Amino acid sequence: MKFSFVSNLYCPKCGNTYETGKKHQLCTCGSPLLVEYDLEKVKNNLTRDEIKTREPTLWRYHELLPVEDESNIVTVGEGMTPLVSLHKVGKDMLLDNLYMKDEGLIPTGSFKARGAAVGVSKAKEVGVEELAMPTNGNAGAAWALYAARAGIKATIVMPNDAPKITRNEVALSGANLYLVNGLISDAGKIVGKAVNDYNLYDASTLKEPYRIEGKKTMGLEIAEQLNWKMPDVVLYPTGGGVGLIGIYKALKELRTLGWVEGKLPRLVAVQSTGCAPIVKAWEKKELESDFWPNSKTNAFGINVPKALGDFLVLDAVYGTNGCAVAVDDDLMLEEQKKVAEMEGSFICPEGAAVFAAARKLRKDGWIGQNETVVALNTGAGIKYPDTVQLRPEMLEKEDTIFKAVKNHK
Amino acid sequence: MKFSFVSNLYCPKCGNTYETGKKHQLCTCGSPLLVEYDLEKVKNNLTRDEIKTREPTLWRYHELLPVEDESNIVTVGEGMTPLVSLHKVGKDMLLDNLYMKDEGLIPTGSFKARGAAVGVSKAKEVGVEELAMPTNGNAGAAWALYAARAGIKATIVMPNDAPKITRNEVALSGANLYLVNGLISDAGKIVGKAVNDYNLYDASTLKEPYRIEGKKTMGLEIAEQLNWKMPDVVLYPTGGGVGLIGIYKALKELRTLGWVEGKLPRLVAVQSTGCAPIVKAWEKKELESDFWPNSKTNAFGINVPKALGDFLVLDAVYGTNGCAVAVDDDLMLEEQKKVAEMEGSFICPEGAAVFAAARKLRKDGWIGQNETVVALNTGAGIKYPDTVQLRPEMLEKEDTIFKAVKNHK
Repeated sequence: MKFSFVSNLYCPKCGNTYETGKKHQLCTCGSPLLVEYDLEKVKNNLTRDEIKTREPTLWRYHELLPVEDESNIVTVGEGMTPLVSLHKVGKDMLLDNLYMKDEGLIPTGSFKARGAAVGVSKAKEVGVEELAMPTNGNAGAAWALYAARAGIKATIVMPNDAPKITRNEVALSGANLYLVNGLISDAGKIVGKAVNDYNLYDASTLKEPYRIEGKKTMGLEIAEQLNWKMPDVVLYPTGGGVGLIGIYKALKELRTLGWVEGKLPRLVAVQSTGCAPIVKAWEKKELESDFWPNSKTNAFGINVPKALGDFLVLDAVYGTNGCAVAVDDDLMLEEQKKVAEMEGSFICPEGAAVFAAARKLRKDGWIGQNETVVALNTGAGIKYPDTVQLRPEMLEKEDTIFKAVKNHK
Repeated sequence: MKFSFVSNLYCPKCGNTYETGKKHQLCTCGSPLLVEYDLEKVKNNLTRDEIKTREPTLWRYHELLPVEDESNIVTVGEGMTPLVSLHKVGKDMLLDNLYMKDEGLIPTGSFKARGAAVGVSKAKEVGVEELAMPTNGNAGAAWALYAARAGIKATIVMPNDAPKITRNEVALSGANLYLVNGLISDAGKIVGKAVNDYNLYDASTLKEPYRIEGKKTMGLEIAEQLNWKMPDVVLYPTGGGVGLIGIYKALKELRTLGWVEGKLPRLVAVQSTGCAPIVKAWEKKELESDFWPNSKTNAFGINVPKALGDFLVLDAVYGTNGCAVAVDDDLMLEEQKKVAEMEGSFICPEGAAVFAAARKLRKDGWIGQNETVVALNTGAGIKYPDTVQLRPEMLEKEDTIFKAVKNHK
């Protein structure tokens, strides 16, 4: 029995195809490449019941992933993160069926681990020895750590303002870490030069074809966890947008397999008002976005002024009757607090943006009260401790607590 | 079909029994209470195959947990953390079968979530409205967040030196947070007074009987993940020691059920040379430990000078022909680096202590080369960013990378 039913790479712009046994980056036309599978054979060889008995990692879907030899898998147990029911926050925004896909419960504490696990595994399979990438922090941390496990050398360049903890992760992995006095786009230029000069594997967002396949597993898992019923709406914090592209691809593959039926969920690209190129393009019904100048948001992961895959993100939004919406940073922090106080979960600012967007879309009537809504929390709040303001009282050993009780009774 | 086969509470010191429908703290004799199940009925009503098909959370073992009404469960998807094979680190210490149980992949990024999930759920079931506890950080964070989800008020007191991120978690949950200029034992005294003065539920380590049951699930999962074969050795970083007590209890229950056979694994209590009361007691073959004065270690979670359940920890070690071993803080940091560079995982200092201990015991011959060894990493390294030293190079936008390549080629 085959481990993977991958068939080839193809270009969504010019239609060119490539084989998956060799290193590939962009298409000769400059577009990102996508991965194609022989879904007819998957259909004949795999059932949903079989999947149910497998280990709770994203590799339970290995037939729909690009790694062809099981021995190339680089895993520390990523995937099958919880789909948590949020009754109280849902009620607070008049939503009867609100769920959170919690990507904080994954190696490196961020959904970037999915792309890294599949991307690094496939890089190992095609013989990559050294990779380089720019990052807003979390992707670099994930790729550095998975590369370390795979025995692949890594060079990571991140903005000086990226979350501090991600520096520690990269440094501890033994990768080469550089900071740049600029944005991820500046880091990207530096990496681009290094890739050219030294013939490195470019692991930048969408410049290798396999990160999407890792992110795709979020869509596969949401479908499985809802017992193979599709939700009505999925909201996703959108920087590079790979997750949204991946979820769209996953659901289309599942529909082709006949494992889900009916309309795809409306996909929502959530951005910050400080960096909203996709929203701007969507509002004008354009097929690509423009570079967003002077971008700024506390939700660092979605500070991406121009995404290479913007046309694919917009395609996913248009193709599902979804929408794109921008929210203020202040609203994110309010939602972060609400989710902690009501639901006991410390989500990241990007995840909080999604809840702010859900509240807005519910209020506007774009989301109906009894629709099933999945909000993607892309990482653990503990990676962003500075988002929380606190002034705890300091006691001496002989002190007694008064305030706790005074507050309550 | 019954959701739980809990039968009663019992005192491991004086033998007194209590019913589980009401609030209980310590036994009247001052000992912690343990939970007993009707294992004969479990045996007749549940199979290992049935468990395999359930969701990947610790609640898959609900028959062996104390919550009697499913509606009282307070969950954000905790449990079934990965058991990761560590070939390279294993090889580095001449161990053929080294596994890491990675408790970084759980809500709040620490194994404390298990105790909190089960402890808070049962607190809700018996009608608790307000709880209080001292903490070295992670337990307080977990209990505060789960209490928020349950709608239970919480008061948390932690030493000023506890990991900073855990303060943020507690504050964001809406709990009352106090710092104390002292150790967890000082925080414990302040909580003790507040509990008495205001009739709060005392959620201190082992002062309520259900936290152990949550921690027990680590033992259940290890057995299931090794396909119901027991490992030869389990190493555990030991502060309060609840996890070790829980794993011991779990494996004995599984043996009674007939789901595992043969000798229990040798349980190893790992401490720091800066705080090693259990090790000292074990070396003298004593049944209880003495207070360790002036305790100090970077592995903050195991800075517990005198554990209330010390006699139960020592019982687990003696009962399995295990041992207790102390390691230096410096060695922990070396192991933390090795695990990141070789295996791609950023573990916490307490988890790193366990690898230092495994290396020592292997070198001494106490662990054999082909034995199956499970090391407990109790939390995510990202909760302790200050353990990593780094000096990344800063680039300007127009810079080029030289060093990366010079280093490698």
